[in-house]
Amino acid sequence: MSNKRATSLKDVADAAGVSVTTVSRMLNGSLQLPPETKLRIDKAIQDLKYEPNPHARRLSRGRSDTIGLVVPDIANPFFATLVATIEEEADKRGLALSLHATLNRPGREIAYLRSLGRNHVDGLVFVTNHPDDGELAALINQTGKVVVVDEDVPNAMVPKLFCDNEQGGYLAGRHLAEYGHARVLYIGGPQEMISTRRRYKGLERAMIEHGTGIDGLIRYEGDYTVEFGRAAGRRFLDEGKPATAIFASSDEIAIGLIEVLRGQGVSIPGEVSIVGFDDVGPLHLFAPPLTAIRQPVRAIGERALSLLLETDWQQREDFTSEELLAIEIVVRNSVAPPSNP
Amino acid sequence: MSNKRATSLKDVADAAGVSVTTVSRMLNGSLQLPPETKLRIDKAIQDLKYEPNPHARRLSRGRSDTIGLVVPDIANPFFATLVATIEEEADKRGLALSLHATLNRPGREIAYLRSLGRNHVDGLVFVTNHPDDGELAALINQTGKVVVVDEDVPNAMVPKLFCDNEQGGYLAGRHLAEYGHARVLYIGGPQEMISTRRRYKGLERAMIEHGTGIDGLIRYEGDYTVEFGRAAGRRFLDEGKPATAIFASSDEIAIGLIEVLRGQGVSIPGEVSIVGFDDVGPLHLFAPPLTAIRQPVRAIGERALSLLLETDWQQREDFTSEELLAIEIVVRNSVAPPSNP
Repeated sequence: MSNKRATSLKDVADAAGVSVTTVSRMLNGSLQLPPETKLRIDKAIQDLKYEPNPHARRLSRGRSDTIGLVVPDIANPFFATLVATIEEEADKRGLALSLHATLNRPGREIAYLRSLGRNHVDGLVFVTNHPDDGELAALINQTGKVVVVDEDVPNAMVPKLFCDNEQGGYLAGRHLAEYGHARVLYIGGPQEMISTRRRYKGLERAMIEHGTGIDGLIRYEGDYTVEFGRAAGRRFLDEGKPATAIFASSDEIAIGLIEVLRGQGVSIPGEVSIVGFDDVGPLHLFAPPLTAIRQPVRAIGERALSLLLETDWQQREDFTSEELLAIEIVVRNSVAPPSNP
Repeated sequence: MSNKRATSLKDVADAAGVSVTTVSRMLNGSLQLPPETKLRIDKAIQDLKYEPNPHARRLSRGRSDTIGLVVPDIANPFFATLVATIEEEADKRGLALSLHATLNRPGREIAYLRSLGRNHVDGLVFVTNHPDDGELAALINQTGKVVVVDEDVPNAMVPKLFCDNEQGGYLAGRHLAEYGHARVLYIGGPQEMISTRRRYKGLERAMIEHGTGIDGLIRYEGDYTVEFGRAAGRRFLDEGKPATAIFASSDEIAIGLIEVLRGQGVSIPGEVSIVGFDDVGPLHLFAPPLTAIRQPVRAIGERALSLLLETDWQQREDFTSEELLAIEIVVRNSVAPPSNP
């Protein structure tokens, strides 16, 4: 590496034949210039390898000032909104975003954690979507600057941030119980995930509190996917519609479920009531508009980045609690009293 | 920088007390190990700063083996799916993804191009969403390894990849003309964008070809947003419904439009037929299921990355043509003959 002094603003100005003020104001966007002038300045910046501030000097030397973000699936609207929010918050702070999707590829979570650990990102926001045998938790604890978001990694001793899943299940259960439903089907994600368990717990709590009891509460557990929603819908029909209401615990599950029910001419809410969860998609335009528990996606994204940047990583022993963000129910038209209790 | 020899696989194996084969097979994912053993190996890798292959050595020294991706809005399902596809394709090739959203922040496109140019990404996939005064094109031409996707940047001399917008407009127009619509409203994005112009041209071509003519063809042009869809819906009603069919040229526009029409009790397709564009969202569950032109989003993402990596960047003078990907119409239930032609 050469040891000549770094290019200064004046070097750029001289090379481009303009004043220092002109270059400075162009760089901070406060000056309109003719395209040819801007081109000359840009060319000088590139030829002389000028880096406008210490922040950028650090940026081009290593991998700092970058946040890593690992999510299961970017195309899923919930994660897309989370990614969008985190990118926006990172950008406000001058941080770049390195984005990775794990989809259903085994080992990708571990591989990304290892490579991100090596490449010195400023920190990592981590969203898992399957159970851990302990390897992931151990690697997270080794890696250090990680915030676990949306789904738990048990035994990872880092800041954790989820929506209040239990409260979400409770709000759904209370709404259905108030309409008189005692036979309720819960369609959840993978059985071992805390989101699946907590939403079910909340549902139970509401039905017990309302006096309905849980004799009529059944569950199918699988994946937060459209495909699983379809499979659940088919199973529901095959089993002779063993419930008068369904709590479909994600937008994707609801979409698959409703596809199948509509395809078989089942009337919603005439024959079966439905409550969804997430409410990121255009559920208000469905037939009928879907009642759903709304996740505070943008708040989760903003808080995730704040946690990542504000946490004192030396105070490791404090990381035993989780932060839960409040959730709400959006009442629309997909719930009615049961026609055949 | 130290000049000791790089850490070898054997160094790691010795430090962890296992064989070289064990370390090697663990790294390529072909061996199940007890968690404590994996932890010991991981620790040795981190402590000794082992980099498993030349690829990764390059990765941690500078910013190569990273693709940059600039899109207007990550939360928009079209772009979310594009980002997801490009991330997946990049990952298959061992490339990381640095993601940036421009939203409606002036100057961000320019700022990202500059910083990505300095940080030596392997290339950049670039999606713009507003007209260029020439500055963007000039900077793209300077930066070099850029593929322009989805929207044109006129005068940028780089590979370009769009869906066949004109054909999309044509398919929509032909479908509406076949149903007898002569009074058609086109709701488009920003007026100067090629997507807006070409979809309109296709619509025109279909109506002329069908013999309907274009006396009854009107247009509102604005943004590919839910907000603009609502504004267009309100204007349509304020103007006394001056068309029997509407071509709403994005999912977002259609969502906003339908919200407003439904809110005013306007029957679709009873009083007005609608054809959408994109078909990324769950349009099949709308009331009624929406007929729409489907964008080949995943194909665009896959092709964009191939172009980026396979283009011979020395052959700059060849970059005068654009690549158009085929598009299709998905016929559902939102188009019917006009009740009042």
